[in-house]
Amino acid sequence: MAIVDPWGAGDIKIDEKLLKEFGITSFSKELIKKHDHYLFQRGIVTAHRDFKKIQDRIDAKKPFIQITGIASSGPLHLGHKVDIDLFMYFSQFGKSYFAICDIDGYVSRPDEKVSSMHDAKKIAIKNLAHILALGVKQNQVYVQSQMSPAYYELVLSLSKKITENNFRAIYGHLNPGKLAANLLQYADILHRQLPEFDGKMPSLTGIGIEQDPHARATRDLSRKLSFPVETPSFIYFEHQRGLQVGKKMSASQPDTAIFLDDSPADVKKKVNRAFSGGKDTLEEHRKYGADVDIDRAFEILKFHHPDTDIVNEIRAKYSSGEMLTGELKKIVIDFLNEFLAKHQEKVKKMLPIATKMVLKQ
Amino acid sequence: MAIVDPWGAGDIKIDEKLLKEFGITSFSKELIKKHDHYLFQRGIVTAHRDFKKIQDRIDAKKPFIQITGIASSGPLHLGHKVDIDLFMYFSQFGKSYFAICDIDGYVSRPDEKVSSMHDAKKIAIKNLAHILALGVKQNQVYVQSQMSPAYYELVLSLSKKITENNFRAIYGHLNPGKLAANLLQYADILHRQLPEFDGKMPSLTGIGIEQDPHARATRDLSRKLSFPVETPSFIYFEHQRGLQVGKKMSASQPDTAIFLDDSPADVKKKVNRAFSGGKDTLEEHRKYGADVDIDRAFEILKFHHPDTDIVNEIRAKYSSGEMLTGELKKIVIDFLNEFLAKHQEKVKKMLPIATKMVLKQ
Repeated sequence: MAIVDPWGAGDIKIDEKLLKEFGITSFSKELIKKHDHYLFQRGIVTAHRDFKKIQDRIDAKKPFIQITGIASSGPLHLGHKVDIDLFMYFSQFGKSYFAICDIDGYVSRPDEKVSSMHDAKKIAIKNLAHILALGVKQNQVYVQSQMSPAYYELVLSLSKKITENNFRAIYGHLNPGKLAANLLQYADILHRQLPEFDGKMPSLTGIGIEQDPHARATRDLSRKLSFPVETPSFIYFEHQRGLQVGKKMSASQPDTAIFLDDSPADVKKKVNRAFSGGKDTLEEHRKYGADVDIDRAFEILKFHHPDTDIVNEIRAKYSSGEMLTGELKKIVIDFLNEFLAKHQEKVKKMLPIATKMVLKQ
Repeated sequence: MAIVDPWGAGDIKIDEKLLKEFGITSFSKELIKKHDHYLFQRGIVTAHRDFKKIQDRIDAKKPFIQITGIASSGPLHLGHKVDIDLFMYFSQFGKSYFAICDIDGYVSRPDEKVSSMHDAKKIAIKNLAHILALGVKQNQVYVQSQMSPAYYELVLSLSKKITENNFRAIYGHLNPGKLAANLLQYADILHRQLPEFDGKMPSLTGIGIEQDPHARATRDLSRKLSFPVETPSFIYFEHQRGLQVGKKMSASQPDTAIFLDDSPADVKKKVNRAFSGGKDTLEEHRKYGADVDIDRAFEILKFHHPDTDIVNEIRAKYSSGEMLTGELKKIVIDFLNEFLAKHQEKVKKMLPIATKMVLKQ
């Protein structure tokens, strides 16, 4: 079986072969229709494990647990925003919990990236301010380093449910810090089902396909616990690619991503440099049109513009050659800068709240 | 370098070769004289790492941290009592903390021994009642599963300070449950030096020599932390041997140990069956006397009888042949049963308190 490393390069695309190999189910058209959100409509949320359990709960207007989280390892970019947007969509249906994974961020990243828990918490504060600004409610958020004992008891006791060989088979390594990060991630997904929290209940977590080893490990673990638990469900979303070909969005290569902190000038520069599906000459472009599917500026609209009619109109005009690359990029730059200006205003207001929440001051 | 496995059979005796190999210092006669307690006077506490730091604190009447703990993995026996007696002795000088290691007990032991955290807590309650009955104060005790977040943050973040090779070199394995148990043990010893607790301060922990890998690992770790910390000091005590030759005291072989819960009939039976240093015939015994150093009944007095004059008198009479094995064993049985009767009365009173402390009810 292929090993998918959740910490490795993230250029794995969802395809039928992978889905079959890992036992993941594609979203049916029928199921997609039930979810009137662009992440579904535009083929960004594509597959799942056991989503039916969740759909049944939504249809019956019964509660379920939604849980997601972000490791505090660097500034947030548009790729993270997809995670948060998906969380916001499902939070209208379920009991929703957003984990600020400061301990995970510290133990899973090399010291060059996160050198201490103090660093991780500084990152966590900034991340949390962005997350709140994107609409996540304060009472939906928890910070890994600020939990009650039952949570940590679960984190540590899960160590007994996995073996060295087991862990190595899934991840290909057994680094103590990454082992600890995994225990935290398993517990993040499972802890709400403890009797001390919500109790046994279907749960939903949205992840990128490269995180599937975590999903499978968590589902396997859930069958070995000493308290009653529903096997957690997962939905998989496609990752927005890096702005340059062959690169994923990464804090260590700032040109690959638009960060939620970027200035208007940064945005302009990065979008203008982004890999384009437009043709080399005006003549060719007018004749053949752009290859929209490889165009990273268009991809920003696909993943983030809320109005599907506008996105479809741009797609039609750009792929027919009616719209030029420069025109498209201007639209994208204006869209992003308008969004980021408002967003960054909210972030400023949220920073003191985020500081209090992370440091429990 | 030899690997000493803290979970292996515990028949390693302190000898000069081992001391030298591991960089441990013998207690000098001068230092022993300063500690008027039978564990020192009878050569049971024998060696240390960095005890001078602690002696300086005692001499200057300045505070230091004393920290010890017992994993909740089974009933307590006389071997555990040594740990507790040593703790009681030093608690007159230092800030003293006694860890009830319920999570450690669960994750480090096989399911046959501790099958769930629920089991571990049941064991923890009983152990704690005994520990309180032996004189440890409630406010000196903490339970691993009932700590504040700063403790767990330290437990988990320590995972980043050890490497897979590092861990394997010390312990010879990398079992996730035992890795988690080690992180807990490191944090038990180090957490009081966090700014959230007592801050930087010399600390003392008494252990058996076979636990030295933990001591060295903890001392190594203490030099890599992001908060100011004194390298912890350790004292090493000799283990009371099992009642049968070649066996250590063990809950899985009840005849090897006197448990603190044993009935008078149990005690009588076990002491009478204990390996004896007496001679095979009355004639030989009177002529050559007993070999006191291999006699397990005498060893009970050596490790537990508070009056050194009485113990010395018995040693003299028994080794000269004046006292017979049957007479010695009767003294030991009477001594133990008198002690255990009073002790078990106190345990009964402490059980409701211990239950509240472990379950936070």
